Amino acid sequence: MNLAQFNLEIAEVRNDRQHGASELARRCLAVLAGASRTLPAESTVELREWLLTLALTLARTRPSMTPIENLLHHWWETSALDADLELATAREVAAKQAEALIAISQRAVTECAAHAARCLDPGQTIMTHSFSSTVLEVCRLLQGQGSQVIVTESRPLAEGRALAKKLSDWHVPTIYITDAQIGLFVTQADAVLVGADSVLADGAVVNKAGTYLLALAARDQGVPFYVCCESFKWRRTEELPPELEEMAPAELSVPEWPGVTVRNLYFDITPARLVSAWISETGVQAAP
Amino acid sequence: MNLAQFNLEIAEVRNDRQHGASELARRCLAVLAGASRTLPAESTVELREWLLTLALTLARTRPSMTPIENLLHHWWETSALDADLELATAREVAAKQAEALIAISQRAVTECAAHAARCLDPGQTIMTHSFSSTVLEVCRLLQGQGSQVIVTESRPLAEGRALAKKLSDWHVPTIYITDAQIGLFVTQADAVLVGADSVLADGAVVNKAGTYLLALAARDQGVPFYVCCESFKWRRTEELPPELEEMAPAELSVPEWPGVTVRNLYFDITPARLVSAWISETGVQAAP
Repeated sequence: MNLAQFNLEIAEVRNDRQHGASELARRCLAVLAGASRTLPAESTVELREWLLTLALTLARTRPSMTPIENLLHHWWETSALDADLELATAREVAAKQAEALIAISQRAVTECAAHAARCLDPGQTIMTHSFSSTVLEVCRLLQGQGSQVIVTESRPLAEGRALAKKLSDWHVPTIYITDAQIGLFVTQADAVLVGADSVLADGAVVNKAGTYLLALAARDQGVPFYVCCESFKWRRTEELPPELEEMAPAELSVPEWPGVTVRNLYFDITPARLVSAWISETGVQAAP
Repeated sequence: MNLAQFNLEIAEVRNDRQHGASELARRCLAVLAGASRTLPAESTVELREWLLTLALTLARTRPSMTPIENLLHHWWETSALDADLELATAREVAAKQAEALIAISQRAVTECAAHAARCLDPGQTIMTHSFSSTVLEVCRLLQGQGSQVIVTESRPLAEGRALAKKLSDWHVPTIYITDAQIGLFVTQADAVLVGADSVLADGAVVNKAGTYLLALAARDQGVPFYVCCESFKWRRTEELPPELEEMAPAELSVPEWPGVTVRNLYFDITPARLVSAWISETGVQAAP
């Protein structure tokens, strides 16, 4: 891997609107595994410097997505590339550690989904927002149990479509609505289940814009609101909330009108007080 | 006007997604004025029967829009076409009464907007949802006073675009967002101002889907939520809530996936407890 190839990978992660934070974090680890093995370094010290630069660059690419930062930080700490390691060994240690973390993250998502599925009864109606691979895994586990899913469009790029298509393939009965109808349909849900891009130390949830509205409506209608994500998404106590990424106004497909500013913030923050329980690979933590 | 022409008018009112309840109610009155003058009736009794049928048909066309029902009912009651009136006189009485009500409704909207504008200070940021001709009139009154407006897209057909364009023409600084970003931007608003399609006797507000979410977010963030509409939109105590109209799923522009039901309810109901004040042509009624 040379710098041009790396920059291409960075651009793809930056522009990815299809995958959630966990999937992109694992993709970043895969990029680092490849870089560890193939970067044109002459010594372990040079490799270390390169890998640190690449990891920091990747971690800054999607600031709202904490697992990227957390997993890359964890990778760097646990790889511990001593200067006296042989270059070939150092390459293999760093690559293997990245691959091990990918597997750990994948297992965490699976276990998290299993915990979430146990919170739900067969035949219940679940409502979600945006496209979370963890929520998708929960839906996969609930196949054939008479469950129904309410899926929101999730503007501007409508990730809800991909989710609805997947649920259709799996024969899970699905209701597809605009984001504006969230308040109308939350009354039909037995539970709301969303993923997260980040969870703040106090339990507040950074997720696709609209999640806060769904949480407000769920609370107002007495429907439990579950957040379901691997623990790499949690931020440490001393960390500030992440920057809320803003994407191109062009994604809203409106003309340019003089004096009209089109805003396209991708994430909002749902306060912890609106969350009924946080579900991770370690289990279910109900709100106090 | 013959029956074919009348059915054409009905279809246009039914399919109209551009105009609000007040404007459509006035359009229905204009149709009845035309019908009063030109329906092929041979006697006043025949004219009465025709007009009653037409009025009832029009009133049922947009069940979520109470002013249509209210204004048409009021028109019928006040026209009082006695059987012993000459046909030509009866035609003129009915037509003139419809035109008088159009003028009353238009004046009510103007006065309502003037009351609303007085609730706002120069330089404030107002947030709204969907396209209300009353809110538009408020914005017109606030031109050149340094006010700013936050406009939501309002899916599926994005009436917010028409509002943003109008505000651009008037040089009112505007922020345009997706409905999903309502919770992110309500924090920037000094007040939320929405119109209504109907107001229930207890003060609950039937308006474009998403209004309830905006009201929840405004309450959660401590932003006042004003409903601003002529009093013909209020329903009487004994009346049930109106039917919430559902439009074609095709408006969401998604493919047909087996097992996926696309829903397109146009209106939601915001409970009175989330409303800070109701503003009509008679003044401002603050929440108790």
